Amino acid sequence: MRVLGVDPGLTRCGLSVLDVGARGDLAPSGARPRMVAVGVVRTTSERATGDRLAYLADELDTWLDRFEPDVVAIERVYVAEHVPTVMTTAMASGLVHLAAARRGLVVHEHTPTEVKAAVTGSGRADKAQVTSMITRVLGLLEAPRPADAADALAVAICHAWRGGGSARLEQAVASERARLAAKGVGA
Amino acid sequence: MRVLGVDPGLTRCGLSVLDVGARGDLAPSGARPRMVAVGVVRTTSERATGDRLAYLADELDTWLDRFEPDVVAIERVYVAEHVPTVMTTAMASGLVHLAAARRGLVVHEHTPTEVKAAVTGSGRADKAQVTSMITRVLGLLEAPRPADAADALAVAICHAWRGGGSARLEQAVASERARLAAKGVGA
Repeated sequence: MRVLGVDPGLTRCGLSVLDVGARGDLAPSGARPRMVAVGVVRTTSERATGDRLAYLADELDTWLDRFEPDVVAIERVYVAEHVPTVMTTAMASGLVHLAAARRGLVVHEHTPTEVKAAVTGSGRADKAQVTSMITRVLGLLEAPRPADAADALAVAICHAWRGGGSARLEQAVASERARLAAKGVGA
Repeated sequence: MRVLGVDPGLTRCGLSVLDVGARGDLAPSGARPRMVAVGVVRTTSERATGDRLAYLADELDTWLDRFEPDVVAIERVYVAEHVPTVMTTAMASGLVHLAAARRGLVVHEHTPTEVKAAVTGSGRADKAQVTSMITRVLGLLEAPRPADAADALAVAICHAWRGGGSARLEQAVASERARLAAKGVGA
């Protein structure tokens, strides 16, 4: 399967694309993830909120058009101490949900603790441990930068490894739908 | 001017349209607002977040297409106690900013306290006082319901009355742009 990983934010939104096993295989077991792309969309707080969101929405569409992921994995937003960031991060997260829904893609949310635990084995791992593990797992020559890019890769890896259970269910549902559609019963 | 008032939310999003003075006049002085439309867009939490956002985005486009407001006034989201609602309210608010930006419309945010103060004269007014004042100001036969509809009217009235200063500035800028464009100097 191809996973679009997102570390949502309006000032910086991390995006990554990973392939795990065959394209369209939503339950690849034991396959090693391969990095296809990674990047960060940036907008400045000097622009109006709506203009920043419009730019991010366009970039999300560009990534979805170009890489055609099978599924989207996003880091879940929590209320933190710095309130303004929480609001704009929630807005950015909403755009990801919207763009995915308009293409019929399922979005999986993973908490920061789940992501750290999946990647390093510990929900309390620090950023350096997470980045080091990502670099090794993906066989990269150097550590992904900035932090938002690394986080976008981490949530995609987390989904590839944790998603097994629900992914198998989704695949079963998808195959059943395809079978019914082929028989002309309707999706 | 025609104001689209929004009380943002994903479960219930209040929308209102008010005319104050002439269409396109961004600084109507002393004009009494007239209600053009009011409604509430509802989505159920049983649906996926992306599907709910897609429905709300489509409804916002429908209102903007149908009523062609000159400006958008929205109640500013704050972090409250109930965290999940704050997140979805911020997402809904983001869609309003996005839809307005894509049409070149300016969005004005007003805090709940500003709205209450503008409508009733007191930032500590309760819902009943706000609703009662809206009903009188707009000359309605009965009080607007539900609360989200009343709140959407309140923020539009707030904008009509408070927006004077910045609205006059915007109008001056808009006229100047139109003058330069007419002279072929470029906007």
